[in-house]
Amino acid sequence: MTTISVGMLGCGTVGTGVLTLLNRATNQIAESIKVHFNVKKIAVSHPDKKRNLHWDEDVQFTGEIENVTTDPSIQIVIEVMGTVDQAYHAVCQAINHGKSVITANKELIALKGPQLTKLARQNHVDLYYEASVGGGIPILRVLSDSLITDQITGLTGIVNGTSNYVLSAMKDERSSYADSLKRAQKLGYAEANPINDLSGFDSAYKLAILSQLAFGHTINLKQLERTGIDKITLDELSGAAHWGLTIKPAIVARKKEHTLYTLVAPVAVTKQHPLANVSGVENSVLVTSTALGTTSYTGAGAGSEPTANSIMSDLLTITHHILTEQCGSSYNAPSTHISEYSLLKLPLEYFIALGEPAKKEPKFSNEASQYIEDTFKTGKAVFCITSVLDKNEKTNLEKSLSFMFQNVHFYPILKEN
Amino acid sequence: MTTISVGMLGCGTVGTGVLTLLNRATNQIAESIKVHFNVKKIAVSHPDKKRNLHWDEDVQFTGEIENVTTDPSIQIVIEVMGTVDQAYHAVCQAINHGKSVITANKELIALKGPQLTKLARQNHVDLYYEASVGGGIPILRVLSDSLITDQITGLTGIVNGTSNYVLSAMKDERSSYADSLKRAQKLGYAEANPINDLSGFDSAYKLAILSQLAFGHTINLKQLERTGIDKITLDELSGAAHWGLTIKPAIVARKKEHTLYTLVAPVAVTKQHPLANVSGVENSVLVTSTALGTTSYTGAGAGSEPTANSIMSDLLTITHHILTEQCGSSYNAPSTHISEYSLLKLPLEYFIALGEPAKKEPKFSNEASQYIEDTFKTGKAVFCITSVLDKNEKTNLEKSLSFMFQNVHFYPILKEN
Repeated sequence: MTTISVGMLGCGTVGTGVLTLLNRATNQIAESIKVHFNVKKIAVSHPDKKRNLHWDEDVQFTGEIENVTTDPSIQIVIEVMGTVDQAYHAVCQAINHGKSVITANKELIALKGPQLTKLARQNHVDLYYEASVGGGIPILRVLSDSLITDQITGLTGIVNGTSNYVLSAMKDERSSYADSLKRAQKLGYAEANPINDLSGFDSAYKLAILSQLAFGHTINLKQLERTGIDKITLDELSGAAHWGLTIKPAIVARKKEHTLYTLVAPVAVTKQHPLANVSGVENSVLVTSTALGTTSYTGAGAGSEPTANSIMSDLLTITHHILTEQCGSSYNAPSTHISEYSLLKLPLEYFIALGEPAKKEPKFSNEASQYIEDTFKTGKAVFCITSVLDKNEKTNLEKSLSFMFQNVHFYPILKEN
Repeated sequence: MTTISVGMLGCGTVGTGVLTLLNRATNQIAESIKVHFNVKKIAVSHPDKKRNLHWDEDVQFTGEIENVTTDPSIQIVIEVMGTVDQAYHAVCQAINHGKSVITANKELIALKGPQLTKLARQNHVDLYYEASVGGGIPILRVLSDSLITDQITGLTGIVNGTSNYVLSAMKDERSSYADSLKRAQKLGYAEANPINDLSGFDSAYKLAILSQLAFGHTINLKQLERTGIDKITLDELSGAAHWGLTIKPAIVARKKEHTLYTLVAPVAVTKQHPLANVSGVENSVLVTSTALGTTSYTGAGAGSEPTANSIMSDLLTITHHILTEQCGSSYNAPSTHISEYSLLKLPLEYFIALGEPAKKEPKFSNEASQYIEDTFKTGKAVFCITSVLDKNEKTNLEKSLSFMFQNVHFYPILKEN
């Protein structure tokens, strides 16, 4: 039996889950790979706090991150504390001290992934982060494995459980945005301050991580076209349903030759689209590649045990590398030079939601009138679907419509990956 | 650059796909893992036949399998010739001659998987077979990876593209079973003799392979409860739709403590069920495990390139093992002793399709009459849903109904995994 010493940074929901799974699988791991994991130290803000852990062995809590990241006996550090700056410093320190690192920190990887990967290679240690996207879905490993022989051309996904829960609740139970959000918070599906989730930042980080692996491209998060779900109304959801569409909080990336088109926004999908039935806190990622066509990976996108299970999977990969002296790896990622534009630059079909008519007497324009139903004068919201519009046509139409209606929203209709 | 010498047995659709992908990915592979694959020999029935291959290098065709399986310079043998006895002999010979083996042969692995795995371990070579289930979906690797730390409790899947295509065409286009099958054959989705696919044998083999990996249990194929799709009528599909159900060709395995309940049969699923929208030749496998809950993996279940891509993935795994001198592995599989019963032994809800009334004056029974609508005497087919029935109740009801109606079909309704 080989003992591998592990240190952990943070012990919240995910950290506790890791201990629960490790405890449960101790015998299974010992039997199948003859390894015992010794969780030596856990760095937390309040080391003296009483904790209710499913963990049978001794573990030392410390208030100092350095006690974990610089301890010469610790081989693998699991970072589940969150935040960017402090985590970046801690992970760099651990790597510089020869430790392989597992992190669930999507913001850290989205912003500093390439630097950390490079540092890990220089120090001959591993860096893995399966838990950072899609909870328990092994999506990063799948992308990384397929890359050596296949070319990925498209990604579409629902990767934020909070947003998907809120939109699903609005659609299925006809409860308002505010009520749906309150319920999500009550059920633990949304944080007290859910702005990161609902405004699309969390999805943007995940798109950035997926794009690093799928396209070898680090997304420019500042220029990324990003729309949250907070402006979507119950009327819009019903209007979409009338046209056989469901509005879903999506991330999209399409590669065409040397250009990547990206988007983080609510989109409209048909009932037959694989994302239409992904509801509640579920996550799903569709991957389109040259050899495989479109494959999809669906499951719990968050939660203590699913996320912890992804960390366990990384833990076993690194352990295998330690035992065979092969550390120094990370996920495969191609290195390519591609340009990045908003998906909205491409010709797309749109589902358009028009709020009540503007109070000023509207001026009609040719572009607009053809898309508006006769219900215009009834004072009610109007919904319609465009034929394919290129960027200019869309801009012009949007401009004309916003003279005539309040709250004009264009939702791209996704058909293929 | 390291050269790895490869031999292939068979060069049909899948074999040709492997050459196409290898050719396309040559530079990518050389760049990322510094390996060149030299396909030295291919054994085929007609070595002199003219072939239209996407392959730029020299390759020697031979009519003798032994020329490949015993060639000392060949390190990896890819078996894509099909059949059981000849393939078993060839694979054993390759393994005994120190070659790692990749096979796409589901029948071979379903029937001889444990023996071949043992032989490979004894000879310190690898044996992988990702292409045998789910075409390009990396389902075997996912099961094998998750097993070290998680416990799988349920599998449900659509793993036969031909059956799924025929039922989807019947439902969506209202074309008869015979016409749908003809179209499947025309499109290359069904073989000239499609009995293996339509009667559930192919699905049974795939369930056997999945069960070996997920539960460490080799299914008794002779005792397995197996029903094909060839008795399903258009009326039954409409009747199911009336109740919000879709009939799908499924494999099912549920583990409860030390017992595995299995089934290969058409089942009824609700519109919200993840399998409801899996249509055409698409495959999908739902995996339920203790830590992850239910995850699903969906994609093209067959086809030259998706299947070849799974072989490429095995090829890279084995190559990595050769380079690091770690051959002798296969997928992880637990070794457990569990009993096996038909899923129909468990209490289940059923969708019942009753054909026209029997010609003889029927006798009523109490069990039956409560389930039959008043439409009985109209001479038309009747469809209903039972409440949960245990095995005895089901048997009695089935017996009573078959006195009264022609073609009584019970479809289990699947709700959770």
